Amino acid sequence: MEKVYLVGAGMTKIGRFFDKSARSLFSEALWKAIEDAGGLRPDAVVIGNMTSSVLMEQDDLGPLLVDFAGLRGLPAFKVEAACGSGGAAVYTGYALVKSGLADVVAVGGVEKLTEGVTSEATKALAQASDAQYELIYGVTFTGLNAMVMRYYMEKFGYTREDFAYWPLRMHEYASYNPYAQLPRKTTLEAILNSPLIADPIRLFDASPIGDGAAVVILVRGEERAREVAKKTGRDVLVELASVAMATDSVDLASRRDLLTMESTVTATREAVKRAGISLKDVDYAEVHDAFSITGFLALEDIGFAPKGEAPKLWREGRFAKGDKPEVNFSGGLKARGHPVGATGVYQVAEAYLQLRGDFPGYKASSPETALTHNIGGVGTITAVSVLRRAK
Amino acid sequence: MEKVYLVGAGMTKIGRFFDKSARSLFSEALWKAIEDAGGLRPDAVVIGNMTSSVLMEQDDLGPLLVDFAGLRGLPAFKVEAACGSGGAAVYTGYALVKSGLADVVAVGGVEKLTEGVTSEATKALAQASDAQYELIYGVTFTGLNAMVMRYYMEKFGYTREDFAYWPLRMHEYASYNPYAQLPRKTTLEAILNSPLIADPIRLFDASPIGDGAAVVILVRGEERAREVAKKTGRDVLVELASVAMATDSVDLASRRDLLTMESTVTATREAVKRAGISLKDVDYAEVHDAFSITGFLALEDIGFAPKGEAPKLWREGRFAKGDKPEVNFSGGLKARGHPVGATGVYQVAEAYLQLRGDFPGYKASSPETALTHNIGGVGTITAVSVLRRAK
Repeated sequence: MEKVYLVGAGMTKIGRFFDKSARSLFSEALWKAIEDAGGLRPDAVVIGNMTSSVLMEQDDLGPLLVDFAGLRGLPAFKVEAACGSGGAAVYTGYALVKSGLADVVAVGGVEKLTEGVTSEATKALAQASDAQYELIYGVTFTGLNAMVMRYYMEKFGYTREDFAYWPLRMHEYASYNPYAQLPRKTTLEAILNSPLIADPIRLFDASPIGDGAAVVILVRGEERAREVAKKTGRDVLVELASVAMATDSVDLASRRDLLTMESTVTATREAVKRAGISLKDVDYAEVHDAFSITGFLALEDIGFAPKGEAPKLWREGRFAKGDKPEVNFSGGLKARGHPVGATGVYQVAEAYLQLRGDFPGYKASSPETALTHNIGGVGTITAVSVLRRAK
Repeated sequence: MEKVYLVGAGMTKIGRFFDKSARSLFSEALWKAIEDAGGLRPDAVVIGNMTSSVLMEQDDLGPLLVDFAGLRGLPAFKVEAACGSGGAAVYTGYALVKSGLADVVAVGGVEKLTEGVTSEATKALAQASDAQYELIYGVTFTGLNAMVMRYYMEKFGYTREDFAYWPLRMHEYASYNPYAQLPRKTTLEAILNSPLIADPIRLFDASPIGDGAAVVILVRGEERAREVAKKTGRDVLVELASVAMATDSVDLASRRDLLTMESTVTATREAVKRAGISLKDVDYAEVHDAFSITGFLALEDIGFAPKGEAPKLWREGRFAKGDKPEVNFSGGLKARGHPVGATGVYQVAEAYLQLRGDFPGYKASSPETALTHNIGGVGTITAVSVLRRAK
């Protein structure tokens, strides 16, 4: 079968845009992506989104968005996997292209969290937990992650301070990213003294509430990719070498091990196998750090760090510029922002631009192979993609 | 590329199940489908669902359902396209199998409308309209369809009575269907005297509020299909020959023609072309009749009847047993029921069983080729599938 290539990416800045609708955000990202792909228009659109039903009172988001963007008629539908909706959309878009159902697919993600007040967004996000076994008891999504972080600290002997090095570095990276919601450096002191949300998670351990949209354009076959490269004057082809997904229980009480995101272990193994690479080949990664603890669990469950050692290695300076892999130069969910259903698409767009060498922020060291890792719930679903520069 | 085959189907009875959750309904349909496929288990699951976010306060439905069904870990996510979510799930499942991402895919649909009170379900369903341009004015989904029906009556000179022949026949067919929500015959008098909901739509013109789940199992390649056939002692192979989707504006005011569902015109043309058949080859069809008017528009926009003539042809007895095509022997959304995101999967399951010759209700006349037609919104999205008996 023919290979799948990335030929364009578009992102909006992430923020709290009380004056912008989901339609306008998506449209902005879509047309940026089309322009980036030399004007190549999609013949199908897949949308990652979590909260439109609750916060926007809007279903049938697919046709709504493509119509507003001026592309009425195209096949278009929403894919939902909580915070992993964007990754699931990439997975689905890959399938549409690879199967021949479409030649050119726009995979988008959009989230409009400021459509309601913040307490409504908090409730909407908590729907990533099990409504009958968890949500009904009033637990928030931050509360669930706090339990995981507390247990991790107890089991592996870490302090609050060890976790502060995650947001510290994310804020630094984000300060270079023009699309980031929190593009400013911070200090250990500010992180450690930030307000407690759900002990031990403090404000600076948590990704912010924000709106945003991202779109990547996928095509089938090297010929189409080369045409775009020629038209846009780029000499780099980037292949979407593989995608994989896996799931776990939604409720945490049913997990085999609270500190292992099994969906991440499985999806990564599968994605790496399908791409025909080893994890050691990965030069660059964007991983899902909804909270500081999530970032460390991601590094461990992907296989970049042994279990229990990620915070230590991170504090020692691993995964920074010049290391292999380099991680989250976008600023991560923590500081680039986390417009839920769009996040997985932002990650793929960022990794793609890093491989092209023209990411407009903190630059990776000429990576050849990149991996993106997007989860929904507390590791309930994981979507992993492998991207590589084609020879 | 290898072809896609249907090898199993499972359905729950449709009804108002205050004692059953979405998980239990889905699990029942999934295991019936697996049993029907000779025990073949899926390696990925796609779920069509519309209202879980609003009525169940539950996102991340994919992992929730597969975990409860005892298949924790599989790739699983939700696809949403309003009432066309089931059809969009079939479209997505086809892509997963065809692309090689999975060898065996369970495509399911589930809806639990009785999770809230009926007024909550009415509100949730109205989210298939445009929240900012229509819903905000208080219009219900029935209200929107009533406008279309009124205009159709005025433009083509039909009376209320002409429309009553649709539910009349649907109820008769449903009386043979063990899965139907309304398995009982009715009379013209009962239909014409039923309560007015949104003039000119009366109660018996509208599909009922109900819960249900359906699952079909898809495999890639004739070899896998033959293995299941051998194991189950069936001598008929059924190919999912093509799938196609198209969209239109969500709000009705932006439509080019209020009485033409352009998404249906486009998706049908594409599906028929991809299957390499002519519309005249279709022996059997399940079409989307959320309301009587919808059924007639479907017949016209698919191309089975000239514009403006469907109610007349129907009243004359067309599309009944022995005609070509035979239509909606399940009883349709009207009387089989319309568990929103599951409906498109019910249709494919029913068409599949008709082709196999063992649909447990009103039987089609040995069809070779079948078409299913599922819409979301007032024709905002259409998903069409073509199924055929393999030689």
